[in-house]
Amino acid sequence: MKQIDIKTTQKVQIIDITGKVAVYREIKDGCIVIFVPHTTAALIVNEHEPNLEDDMMHFYTTLAKGDWHHNRVDNNAEAHLVSTTLHSSIVVPIKDGELTLGTWQSILFIELDGPKERKVYVKELTKNVS
Amino acid sequence: MKQIDIKTTQKVQIIDITGKVAVYREIKDGCIVIFVPHTTAALIVNEHEPNLEDDMMHFYTTLAKGDWHHNRVDNNAEAHLVSTTLHSSIVVPIKDGELTLGTWQSILFIELDGPKERKVYVKELTKNVS
Amino acid sequence: MKQIDIKTTQKVQIIDITGKVAVYREIKDGCIVIFVPHTTAALIVNEHEPNLEDDMMHFYTTLAKGDWHHNRVDNNAEAHLVSTTLHSSIVVPIKDGELTLGTWQSILFIELDGPKERKVYVKELTKNVS
Repeated sequence: MKQIDIKTTQKVQIIDITGKVAVYREIKDGCIVIFVPHTTAALIVNEHEPNLEDDMMHFYTTLAKGDWHHNRVDNNAEAHLVSTTLHSSIVVPIKDGELTLGTWQSILFIELDGPKERKVYVKELTKNVS
Repeated sequence: MKQIDIKTTQKVQIIDITGKVAVYREIKDGCIVIFVPHTTAALIVNEHEPNLEDDMMHFYTTLAKGDWHHNRVDNNAEAHLVSTTLHSSIVVPIKDGELTLGTWQSILFIELDGPKERKVYVKELTKNVS
Repeated sequence: MKQIDIKTTQKVQIIDITGKVAVYREIKDGCIVIFVPHTTAALIVNEHEPNLEDDMMHFYTTLAKGDWHHNRVDNNAEAHLVSTTLHSSIVVPIKDGELTLGTWQSILFIELDGPKERKVYVKELTKNVS
């Protein structure tokens, strides 16, 4: 298992990690699993376009606005709630040694409660025809 | 890896692809990964019921309504935003050569910015006890 | 494939199943797939904290409020709609025989239309270096 370290600098931030994930390809046929071991950050597969990323940050900031109980413990309930509607794990097929991402797809790390030091795990699963 | 080709005919449309996915079963034990290489379409596992599918289309059309920056580049920001709350990849276990879908579960392709020509990848992963 | 049986007692309820999932570890290296074969229940990976779980239940109860067509068939459209924004399947890497969950991460079963008898499937995929 490989680990990508990420240092975020903003409260809500989007970081394209496609290049860092793709470099770990060891297999020709199978799938790659990308996992974020955090509860106020998430992963998505979508387009890396600055205007759209501004829109995402705004959407994720407002989707779960509220006066939440958890904010008495730790003022980040919105970050938890929104992260549950995004993804802790992403699976992407590998074919001929390449991620099968579409033309407009990037693997995006979504920080929802930064700035923080984060990590992402990358694991490959081989297809073994039995 | 297998590919399913889908031609959508509406802006927002739901297509049940369970039968097309299930036909690709080559393994007896493992998992199937279904992946959509698009950023304005997605996958879900839920019930194929016409009234509910009308509700889904309405819900997905309104969930991210807004005056978005990305719409100056390409008028489909809502489709991108909603697709990130649904799924690029779906994993379903296989047991005795069958998908372990529940009674009411179908694999549904969600078009959010059609009409378009789309594709879905299907990949199996074997369980190999080492 | 292993099965976890869950008996929910409330309309909307959150149950931490991390311990029940972790007990099934048979492999040292690979991934575990957790799958819910229902269309009005879901899985998330997030923090098991009572105040936050209250907030989640409130958020999931209100996110898809509406006068839905499906409610004429079966009065649970909101449960279907919200479950599609959460997860039917969760994938977690295994390293040295342990789930690689972060400090604050638990595997949470989300009941959205209880009380009901539910089940969750747990499947492991080995990494076989070819």
